[in-house]
Amino acid sequence: MRIDNLPMRTIWHEEAGGPVTLIDQTALPHRLVLHKLHTLEESCEAIRTMRVRGAPLIGATAAHGLAIALAADSSDDHLNQAYTDLLATRPTAVNLRWALDRVVSLVRPAAKAERAAIAFREAIQICDDDVRICEAIGETGLPLLRTLQGKNPERPVQVLTHCNAGWLATVDWGTALAPIYKAHDAGIPVHVWVDETRPRNQGASLTAFELRQHGVPHTVVVDNAGGHLMQRGKVDAVIVGSDRTTAGGDVCNKIGTYLKALAAQAHKIPFYVALPSSTIDWEIRDGIADIPIEDRDPREVREMEGESCDGQITRITLFGEDTPVANPAFDVTPASLVTSLITEHGIFEPNVSDLTRLAKML
Amino acid sequence: MRIDNLPMRTIWHEEAGGPVTLIDQTALPHRLVLHKLHTLEESCEAIRTMRVRGAPLIGATAAHGLAIALAADSSDDHLNQAYTDLLATRPTAVNLRWALDRVVSLVRPAAKAERAAIAFREAIQICDDDVRICEAIGETGLPLLRTLQGKNPERPVQVLTHCNAGWLATVDWGTALAPIYKAHDAGIPVHVWVDETRPRNQGASLTAFELRQHGVPHTVVVDNAGGHLMQRGKVDAVIVGSDRTTAGGDVCNKIGTYLKALAAQAHKIPFYVALPSSTIDWEIRDGIADIPIEDRDPREVREMEGESCDGQITRITLFGEDTPVANPAFDVTPASLVTSLITEHGIFEPNVSDLTRLAKML
Repeated sequence: MRIDNLPMRTIWHEEAGGPVTLIDQTALPHRLVLHKLHTLEESCEAIRTMRVRGAPLIGATAAHGLAIALAADSSDDHLNQAYTDLLATRPTAVNLRWALDRVVSLVRPAAKAERAAIAFREAIQICDDDVRICEAIGETGLPLLRTLQGKNPERPVQVLTHCNAGWLATVDWGTALAPIYKAHDAGIPVHVWVDETRPRNQGASLTAFELRQHGVPHTVVVDNAGGHLMQRGKVDAVIVGSDRTTAGGDVCNKIGTYLKALAAQAHKIPFYVALPSSTIDWEIRDGIADIPIEDRDPREVREMEGESCDGQITRITLFGEDTPVANPAFDVTPASLVTSLITEHGIFEPNVSDLTRLAKML
Repeated sequence: MRIDNLPMRTIWHEEAGGPVTLIDQTALPHRLVLHKLHTLEESCEAIRTMRVRGAPLIGATAAHGLAIALAADSSDDHLNQAYTDLLATRPTAVNLRWALDRVVSLVRPAAKAERAAIAFREAIQICDDDVRICEAIGETGLPLLRTLQGKNPERPVQVLTHCNAGWLATVDWGTALAPIYKAHDAGIPVHVWVDETRPRNQGASLTAFELRQHGVPHTVVVDNAGGHLMQRGKVDAVIVGSDRTTAGGDVCNKIGTYLKALAAQAHKIPFYVALPSSTIDWEIRDGIADIPIEDRDPREVREMEGESCDGQITRITLFGEDTPVANPAFDVTPASLVTSLITEHGIFEPNVSDLTRLAKML
């Protein structure tokens, strides 16, 4: 992807022994701030405070964090500590564990002197793989948008998306937005309805930012508006990402996804979930029973950050501490509401039998 | 209702010739500001900028605005001008026209010297009627909550509400919240899930404020959370208000209501709409085809107001003007998703035949 016309990834590591650099997404859309990770603690903090977010990017960052930890101390004890600390930063994303396990399986048998270099190499490989996988997700989804365009050739394809499953959620390309970028680049006119995505506003802050950078027409709406837009025939498809998908096709994604899936079903609008196969948790089938839902800090709902009239980034309180808040961060969309899963290996139906076909390809 | 334990209405007129006083709801929940109306222009501004909002209170304010206008100039021309100006302040609420017509029908045949006094008398009568009607809505809804309590006696009745249809939306008591206040006062334990209600946050700012003042347990959630709460069995009923209801029972209410109605249906949770019969537009049946949806200023989505760390009310920009915004303010919930209409004349089914029964009672 390009920012101000320069190609950029969301995380990179330029030189051995040097820090890992990432785009600090908490400063967007107001500022483009590059944030450097020098220690395990800084790596954990970056994930926990959501300087990086999005399941694939969390995995890539955790892998780099493990490498940074091993560069400081490559002992078994420190490896175990780093693994535990990084895994605890976010409870929902399955990629976090997947990426950490991938690095650990290579470094544990290695000599201590080699561990940091191996870990960095693998973290970089995880990033390169992610770019390739996300681009493949885009290629898989492209024909779906082409078909929708054929049904209403006189106007752009109208896609609604929730949260940010774009290149900012990955290393490049994104998941839900990858087919949209591919369609746009292929000359298919697309317009994206961008859900604001309270409480952290990733839609309005991040998705809108990257769509603008890429020149894709879009309109931000509050999360409340999607049902109305569908009722008025203004949405041709919903495409979202996934933080965790079960072996039966249940999809855990940002809170509010489920409401849009219910509305899409009511209006017979296809509801697509774009995901790398690494976000599938093959151990579980029933997302409602088996996926723990992260309860986040009430301040995410109570407070908000933006630019004040003097150009300063300012935090305001919307209502006082005497008002109780609950802040579940994700919800589960049952497989029955999902039209198809768009993966790097093609399109799959959200059921055990078709996902078993995918499992055999991995 | 009581604020800091003093009884208070949302609008009142203390003395002939004096101004009309209202609670400026744009300052809540941070400050309790009383705002005075001296002119027609100030009355229009108060409605347009939503210092007052909620269908019944808009009607009551418009009636007072007409009286204020006639006190300045009681000519036919000015009466017509005031009617037109006040009617144009908000396009959706049917009570606005209803209240204005009620005053005009009395003042037009009257001598010019009498018009202002008649109008003030009628505006005050509209307020008194509203209080009586809203209290009756509470009495109508109370048995529904008692029944829900009987089904799950070991825990409070869990009600989800969207936007503010409380006493701040009316002159006193409220519509959707009236049954909740009646239940609370009757000793039935109730807990309310309060939708934040973007973009103007009437839930977090107003509903939470008045529930706290009345001592009703409640928790604010983002608008995205309702589907998840229902899926996890944490909602026993949804109760919302209505800005306009068709003769067939379609309900136009704050944007996002429709998504909650779809989710309630999916989980077989009763979806109640509490409304004074004056919000029924007997001229139309099909809410989707026939109710114009107000598109409001994009700044409502782009900007936000709250208290900064130094205690100042501060406006911040969430994202820049290069990001396009659409801001539909209402949506239509079709009658098929509505369990019952809770009115001052009892409970009605959302269909032409049962609403005709209501029409005959008016």
